Amino acid sequence: MDMDSVFNPSSVAVIGASNKEGSVGYGLFRNLSSFSGSIYPVNPNRNDVQGTKTYRSVLDIEGNVDMAVIAVPAKLVPGIIDECGERGVKACIVVSSGFKETGNEGKRLEEKIKKKVEKYGITLIGPNCLGVINTENSLNASFSAKMPNKGRTAVISQSGALGSAIIEWSLEQGVGIKSFISVGSMLDVDFGDLLKYFCEDDGTDGIIIYMESIKDARKFMDVAKRCVRKKPIVVLKAGLTDAGRKAAVSHTGSMAGNDDVYKAAFRQVGILQIDEIDDVFNCLRTLNLGKLPDGPGLAIVTNAGGAGVLSADAVQKSGGVMAKLSKRTIDELDSVMPDAWSKGNPVDVLGDASAEIYEKAIDACMRDKNVDGVLVVFTPQYASEPEKTAEMVGRLSKKHKKPLLSSWIGPEGKNKSTGILSKYSVSNYPTPERAVKAFIKIIKYKENLRLMEEVPSENLPKISPDRDLIRQEIGRAGNKIISESKSKEILAQYGIPVIETVLAKTPEEAAEQASRIGFPVALKVQSPELTHKSDSGGVLLYIHSKDEVIEGFRKIMDDVNKRKPGISIDGISVQKMVEGLDYELIMGSANDPDFGKIVLFGIGGMDAEIYNDKSIGLPPLNRPLARKVMEDTRIFRFLKEGYRNRKPVDMEALEKTMERLSYLVRDFPQINEIDINPLAIKEGKPVVLDARIILK
Amino acid sequence: MDMDSVFNPSSVAVIGASNKEGSVGYGLFRNLSSFSGSIYPVNPNRNDVQGTKTYRSVLDIEGNVDMAVIAVPAKLVPGIIDECGERGVKACIVVSSGFKETGNEGKRLEEKIKKKVEKYGITLIGPNCLGVINTENSLNASFSAKMPNKGRTAVISQSGALGSAIIEWSLEQGVGIKSFISVGSMLDVDFGDLLKYFCEDDGTDGIIIYMESIKDARKFMDVAKRCVRKKPIVVLKAGLTDAGRKAAVSHTGSMAGNDDVYKAAFRQVGILQIDEIDDVFNCLRTLNLGKLPDGPGLAIVTNAGGAGVLSADAVQKSGGVMAKLSKRTIDELDSVMPDAWSKGNPVDVLGDASAEIYEKAIDACMRDKNVDGVLVVFTPQYASEPEKTAEMVGRLSKKHKKPLLSSWIGPEGKNKSTGILSKYSVSNYPTPERAVKAFIKIIKYKENLRLMEEVPSENLPKISPDRDLIRQEIGRAGNKIISESKSKEILAQYGIPVIETVLAKTPEEAAEQASRIGFPVALKVQSPELTHKSDSGGVLLYIHSKDEVIEGFRKIMDDVNKRKPGISIDGISVQKMVEGLDYELIMGSANDPDFGKIVLFGIGGMDAEIYNDKSIGLPPLNRPLARKVMEDTRIFRFLKEGYRNRKPVDMEALEKTMERLSYLVRDFPQINEIDINPLAIKEGKPVVLDARIILK
Repeated sequence: MDMDSVFNPSSVAVIGASNKEGSVGYGLFRNLSSFSGSIYPVNPNRNDVQGTKTYRSVLDIEGNVDMAVIAVPAKLVPGIIDECGERGVKACIVVSSGFKETGNEGKRLEEKIKKKVEKYGITLIGPNCLGVINTENSLNASFSAKMPNKGRTAVISQSGALGSAIIEWSLEQGVGIKSFISVGSMLDVDFGDLLKYFCEDDGTDGIIIYMESIKDARKFMDVAKRCVRKKPIVVLKAGLTDAGRKAAVSHTGSMAGNDDVYKAAFRQVGILQIDEIDDVFNCLRTLNLGKLPDGPGLAIVTNAGGAGVLSADAVQKSGGVMAKLSKRTIDELDSVMPDAWSKGNPVDVLGDASAEIYEKAIDACMRDKNVDGVLVVFTPQYASEPEKTAEMVGRLSKKHKKPLLSSWIGPEGKNKSTGILSKYSVSNYPTPERAVKAFIKIIKYKENLRLMEEVPSENLPKISPDRDLIRQEIGRAGNKIISESKSKEILAQYGIPVIETVLAKTPEEAAEQASRIGFPVALKVQSPELTHKSDSGGVLLYIHSKDEVIEGFRKIMDDVNKRKPGISIDGISVQKMVEGLDYELIMGSANDPDFGKIVLFGIGGMDAEIYNDKSIGLPPLNRPLARKVMEDTRIFRFLKEGYRNRKPVDMEALEKTMERLSYLVRDFPQINEIDINPLAIKEGKPVVLDARIILK
Repeated sequence: MDMDSVFNPSSVAVIGASNKEGSVGYGLFRNLSSFSGSIYPVNPNRNDVQGTKTYRSVLDIEGNVDMAVIAVPAKLVPGIIDECGERGVKACIVVSSGFKETGNEGKRLEEKIKKKVEKYGITLIGPNCLGVINTENSLNASFSAKMPNKGRTAVISQSGALGSAIIEWSLEQGVGIKSFISVGSMLDVDFGDLLKYFCEDDGTDGIIIYMESIKDARKFMDVAKRCVRKKPIVVLKAGLTDAGRKAAVSHTGSMAGNDDVYKAAFRQVGILQIDEIDDVFNCLRTLNLGKLPDGPGLAIVTNAGGAGVLSADAVQKSGGVMAKLSKRTIDELDSVMPDAWSKGNPVDVLGDASAEIYEKAIDACMRDKNVDGVLVVFTPQYASEPEKTAEMVGRLSKKHKKPLLSSWIGPEGKNKSTGILSKYSVSNYPTPERAVKAFIKIIKYKENLRLMEEVPSENLPKISPDRDLIRQEIGRAGNKIISESKSKEILAQYGIPVIETVLAKTPEEAAEQASRIGFPVALKVQSPELTHKSDSGGVLLYIHSKDEVIEGFRKIMDDVNKRKPGISIDGISVQKMVEGLDYELIMGSANDPDFGKIVLFGIGGMDAEIYNDKSIGLPPLNRPLARKVMEDTRIFRFLKEGYRNRKPVDMEALEKTMERLSYLVRDFPQINEIDINPLAIKEGKPVVLDARIILK
């Protein structure tokens, strides 16, 4: 991939350059006029475009051509690529539409182009995209109506129109962008390639992606994992539709929506996910700042008490931390602030605060080791000094290493003071709440990153499953579902603790097994055709004697045959009745259309449906990763710490269970879904009470 | 209250008018210069202020004085009020600070003023406030630096500085305000008075309040309940601190945070609560529109696919409804839209859509009976026609009765097209997501209102509790806690179903009672000093015989005496063991510092702590209101519909339980808190298993 020829070409050809105002070919060429390199319009029907000598073909250009921007009808594109290839063009941006999004013929056109791209070694952006912008060298190889301001962030957009809207908004909100790229249908260059490039690019401090769907999830994850260690990746993910997913058979599968899996994947590699367009600009402001906070403690200095209260509320609601000012800072402020100051954080310097009072407050907070960043809220009041205060805030932001954010309120400020703030690269937010949200987003990114770095690449679990045996069981399964008892055997092979379960074919066999296992026992019908055994009268609990087992066996057979006549029954399983469970959890695996295998952990039983308390990880999961996944549930703290007379759970055993499950699904691609439901916790130990493996 | 003299005076005196630039007295007088009525500066030390003849005292003014704005040192204010009273001034705005917020002397000053205000019948705003603005008659009786644009919404702010920030933001975002008032410390005029006034004011379509704490909660609630039937009330509530609350003894008390109670109170009267400053402006835009949607169905028409997807995501996340376009609309659009249009809602008219295409799409959606409102998203693209499209959107908004919102993207649009939109009173939002949020907020307000109107004012419950007996029990309680068995007796008096519970003093008595009630039974120690009986070994469950009862009685006594030596024990209660519970709920009552008695309903057991699934109501609750409160929990749907083998709960019985509890706490003000924990559900019926009443 020659991404440098895309963002830093020395010469660009515009194939399809036009004189027709309002056309894409017109806009493309006009937008390139500010570029300092050579620009060649190409159009076989014109001698000149917008006053510049025009070539009939890229082959006719005398000079070197690094990149071509192509805006010709789709069916002409393959021929143009041939010409570019012959001419030695390194990169092409195909803005034309009319490819796979229009149907089979478009798809064939794309395949044709793909072969040619491979043949010539061309790096191709698009097709069906808005183009590429680099504000550093004033390259606007796009048909965006506008050029963004300079900044230190790369923006990657999977939607051209939304991309141009992001540029418009960035101008409106006064935030800068270094590079912008609309990726179109990613025939060649995809998210992963771009992350790789921007990760190495020194002028880029952070990357923001608008994503609708991922093409190569594993590649993206691999690159992202390495990239986030150097700079933040922020993703706005849209299109929360599960239409593309196959109907899930398992409980796990129906619990793991595509949106949940994206969220899990992003978290697992340390990507910061945002929820709305406003967050794009909040993050742009923070990333352009170039300074990230070392810890979560935010101090707020304000001349409007109410704004301070709302900001502090926002900190609390977003899960942030209001810095606790040290006694020294409080004492210092007491000696310089007006008597009625707030005596704590938020630091209310009162409505009539001068620039000097603001300076003393901000400086004291910045020097406090409990403070990791300061937000200055300025409301214009009768006695206030907006410009003088802005100058001072700017100087303080240069003086201190901690990030200093501001929210300068009111349109007048916009014109004068915010110009001053911008000169000093202070990030200014439209409202204090948005500043708070941006600060906390960055804190979360940093925390997540730190946790990721803490995850050791542990050795493989010490297990030696009998893989042949499992393969046989899988082969033997008449249909797609492996019975409960066999499923448990397979889990046990991977060292997952299961309750002893024996399949009995006759009442007498069941009674023998029950007396061996020890009473009370549970009897459960085993049939690959039954999803909810208990709904068909197929389960009897608390059986205390051999006679009761014999009677129960017959009752189950009768009831099931009555309710589901003609169903195939493997037998009835006998298992020890586990009484006094502390928790019923669910653990399982499912298949995501974009990311493949996933592992899910959560609360089980009715709570699963009411509270949807679950978390997802992408295998393979080592123990620390498994723990991180589990930590994301609300039940986790109770498992870990115990509750009333329920003692703390053996977390190592729980982590191992999840780790091993992830290895099982990785080792056997034939497995499509697994439900362990419930994974019971008794006296702190996990044990599988019921399980089902579903094959592809 | 003479609010008309506050907002529509014919003459205003400024007491403390000043020539000193930057002073409050200067700003106040300067701001009033645009007012059309008579303005009289008053200052004993000046002959003229800002070129106007100045009076030494309000008594010296020849003409009529409706209102006085007072900006003199706090200690002079009582004397000034006397003068105003003598002069027949009807309303005073005291902007001066230095009253109760500064301590006891300030408090005494306030009390003095209060007496004078009552004596003269003066309507007083403040003290310690920013003042009052009415854009309709150009009255700026405040020291806000700016005057907002005209609008149809009233803004009430409990913070002066935040109030002036709201004015600045409103100008920046181009949204109008009809009246603005900073209430200060509400010595006289409070939220309730203002609601009453704005409710009757024809020029006001909606009311937005920034609230830190309420003064007279009952008054506010009564007025608000009537007002929301005429126009929406929106509250931004800040200051989520529970510092003012007494430590709660009961579980209920510790579960019901002050913030939760405000939320419940707002919901109960149909007030729309918002969470952040941005929402103030989103709501201002919608309220100024003057048209509210009849139903939830939103159609989105966009020329940027990505913006459409994000908007649809926002609808889903905020609990809104994307309108399902009728077949007729789809067919109509199919015949006029470009082939690649989205074939559904969001209606993607594609990047090159002309004004005409936009018009056809919007008009078709507006005519669709499934659509209750349309959001137009416009992204500037090469071929698009911003001004022409804006004109067309404006005309369509006049033509149709349904609300039409827009999000016109980009700063260029801001200047030209949004001017056109504003001319036609189309609400334009900075991002489509904010438009979606505002639309959904209004939908929720309307839904809530409709539900409130459905609540019949039912007759009192048919119960005849023995109030004397309850009074005796309350009187007899040696300390603040009434024992479990007595608490249950009191609940039973109100017709609340309780499990039979007998207090036994000796092992033999317990055994006799157990055999009468029927085995298995539970034994529980009864001591007013024990909060968690089971933690002290004070509970034994599943006791199957008289011998076991005798043994258990002694064991409990031993264990409790060992763990809590010297504790006072009333005896041991015997109750029927209830097996196979479907749900464990919690119901109770607590005392809120602002709103007084509250009733709480929620999930019990460990889930209460993990999932915090609860809802609060303010008594008295009739059955429909009780149901509304319960509907706000996540468990509600499962209770109502049943789950697997748990059958639907008798909702009438549950509603009655809550209704009766609310009457109990209303009838006996001596009761501070009640815990019913658990309120068990067995075979669909609620029954109190354990209860505790705590007195004041």
